[in-house]
Amino acid sequence: MEINADRLKSSLQEMAQIGFVSEEKGINRLGFNDSDKEARDLFITWLEQAGLRIQIDPIGNIFGIRNSKQESEKPVIIGSHLDTVGEGGAFDGAIGVLGGLEIIRTLNDYGIQTRKPIAVADFSHEEGPRFNRNMMGSVALTGKMELADIYALKDKNSITVLEALKKIGYQGTGPWIQPDSFFELHIEQGPILEMEKKTIGVVEGIQGIAWYECLYEGFASHAGPTPLNTRRDSLLGAAELFCRLRELASSRKDGTVITVGCCEIKPNEINVIPGKTLFTLDIRQFIHDRYLETKELAIQLFHEVAEKHNLSGVINIKTEVLPTTFPENMVQLIEDGAKSYNYSFKRMPSGAGHDAQIMHEVCPTTMIFTPSLGGVSHTPLERTSYEDIAKATNVLMAAALNRAG
Amino acid sequence: MEINADRLKSSLQEMAQIGFVSEEKGINRLGFNDSDKEARDLFITWLEQAGLRIQIDPIGNIFGIRNSKQESEKPVIIGSHLDTVGEGGAFDGAIGVLGGLEIIRTLNDYGIQTRKPIAVADFSHEEGPRFNRNMMGSVALTGKMELADIYALKDKNSITVLEALKKIGYQGTGPWIQPDSFFELHIEQGPILEMEKKTIGVVEGIQGIAWYECLYEGFASHAGPTPLNTRRDSLLGAAELFCRLRELASSRKDGTVITVGCCEIKPNEINVIPGKTLFTLDIRQFIHDRYLETKELAIQLFHEVAEKHNLSGVINIKTEVLPTTFPENMVQLIEDGAKSYNYSFKRMPSGAGHDAQIMHEVCPTTMIFTPSLGGVSHTPLERTSYEDIAKATNVLMAAALNRAG
Repeated sequence: MEINADRLKSSLQEMAQIGFVSEEKGINRLGFNDSDKEARDLFITWLEQAGLRIQIDPIGNIFGIRNSKQESEKPVIIGSHLDTVGEGGAFDGAIGVLGGLEIIRTLNDYGIQTRKPIAVADFSHEEGPRFNRNMMGSVALTGKMELADIYALKDKNSITVLEALKKIGYQGTGPWIQPDSFFELHIEQGPILEMEKKTIGVVEGIQGIAWYECLYEGFASHAGPTPLNTRRDSLLGAAELFCRLRELASSRKDGTVITVGCCEIKPNEINVIPGKTLFTLDIRQFIHDRYLETKELAIQLFHEVAEKHNLSGVINIKTEVLPTTFPENMVQLIEDGAKSYNYSFKRMPSGAGHDAQIMHEVCPTTMIFTPSLGGVSHTPLERTSYEDIAKATNVLMAAALNRAG
Repeated sequence: MEINADRLKSSLQEMAQIGFVSEEKGINRLGFNDSDKEARDLFITWLEQAGLRIQIDPIGNIFGIRNSKQESEKPVIIGSHLDTVGEGGAFDGAIGVLGGLEIIRTLNDYGIQTRKPIAVADFSHEEGPRFNRNMMGSVALTGKMELADIYALKDKNSITVLEALKKIGYQGTGPWIQPDSFFELHIEQGPILEMEKKTIGVVEGIQGIAWYECLYEGFASHAGPTPLNTRRDSLLGAAELFCRLRELASSRKDGTVITVGCCEIKPNEINVIPGKTLFTLDIRQFIHDRYLETKELAIQLFHEVAEKHNLSGVINIKTEVLPTTFPENMVQLIEDGAKSYNYSFKRMPSGAGHDAQIMHEVCPTTMIFTPSLGGVSHTPLERTSYEDIAKATNVLMAAALNRAG
């Protein structure tokens, strides 16, 4: 049994029109904006056409639940998110939601009844930009953060989450769903599957992520008359730290990555030695002990370099998600599915965060990856072949059916 | 014969009230703003009180010219600037103008007639910030840049130099002054005199300065799923370059300084590898050949590091001032002056640029430095003791009298 690849492609393409700005700017379906509403409306139309029971919870997560033999069983949920970053692509999130919908349509086509219900989900505001709180839908659903606190978050125009939800009419009154299990199909967002020519990523878990906000403070003096040996150059210290953090990450030989994504200096004038350098660290590692160890080594290095350059240093952790290891029986369902279709596959951790890591805390969860051409995402250039998406959806269907019985 | 230290201090303090914002924000007399006008008005009042002939040229440079025995002789000019950076101090520029005024007041007190006229000058817009063109007054005076081109420069509010000059009423109709020679008293803006406990800096010339605008471009991919060995991290490349430029400057062992004053990255998001890093280089060296050599080595390094990190690199020179060596007979006048008062002194180049390096192209020129406490300038924290200023003014008076005969 295979899903209808043409129908899936056509749904993905129809969805990709919503929020489309231009080839350069891509798709803008920032959580709870007008395009996100339009995407939700279309999704609900499709859920109705597929004969599903629709349930919307207080954070706006949308579930389409298919009837089953034993209605008392909790549903096996397949889903991801329809929101995008500000200049996003057509695949990040959407393939997980519309892949789930396609599985249900296929089950309908074949008239297959499962023991447990199968449901497809669109989680609210998975991307971070608008309210600076990613995976908002799953975080609310699992109670990781109080609903009132989430409702009170504000975007840069001081609009709260609650106001935004009400404006688009998606503050649902449905109950929080009780999942049997959760499967998320997603693009890899990295180059590994493409480089190794594998069709299916069997995702064993998600790397732990630590985000730090850092400050090096020296002294802003004149670039001309200040001799090198009297300088307290915050940017030079930061530069040495960046190089040594890269050496640290490489030397771990365990897939650890460390990234400096933000860097701003003050006063940022051509002839003034930078007095302050503010920067961020993003540290990721899949293995729990090595993750903790790497964080410690990075912090040591931060202070060591500060001292060497006569800088004062402040480093604060901003957010952290510990490494997630998905249950082996769930991971094995994906691997079995890939084998049954004879697709090449690779076991791997996810480098990026996903709703799956939140759902993992309340139910057996796993993920499946499709190759990302060039490894890029969060850009209009993001691409995954429709053939690969169809194959992954087949594998996901097999795994979900296995779970649902 | 000594100048009146109390009168000089009181004039400096009165001037320091103009444009004063707060202890933290210091003084704002950006070129041609309302406070700069107020400072000019006060200066002109003082010139009138000293019985000087006032001459204002088309760029707003103000000269107060003292009568002399031979009026056909060109004037010996003593001066600097009354404008400041956006958050400046009370000494940078002001001591050179008011020191010159104090010398004239002292000559008046003692009824001394010189052979050549002595004049005191306030040069327009010496600091760069407002119109992104420093030493504007001397550049216009010496014809280094066409007046029409200078008039057309715009500030960030699209106000032209000409409009700004007219608004404050300082587009003069006087002729461009023909100088016999030029002396500029200035704070060192570096820590050397203070560290070596010297009272007088005998300035032999000004370091050559090259300003470069640089771009490293790699690829902005996701910080999570992108393995280290596939990254094209523009910031990491820049960080290595910054470290190696510092090593280069140190290894020259000739006072070369290289500074990265501006640095901005894109997209500047915590979980995205920086695709673009824009930065500036400020390279300074006093000895002509070594200056040229250092520039070449820095550019080689720029390209070498770009290649290593798989980045494309663009480096453009923005402005350049070749090293300036003041005429030995002028420098000797300052040294002789210091010796005659028995003040400790040190021969040194200036690390910063000054109107003196522009005037040097049209007449015999030199400078004299006072110690900068902590080596700081371009900040409200800039300090020089009034005692040191008085001493330097004495030396300058001796030198100018020597020159004027």
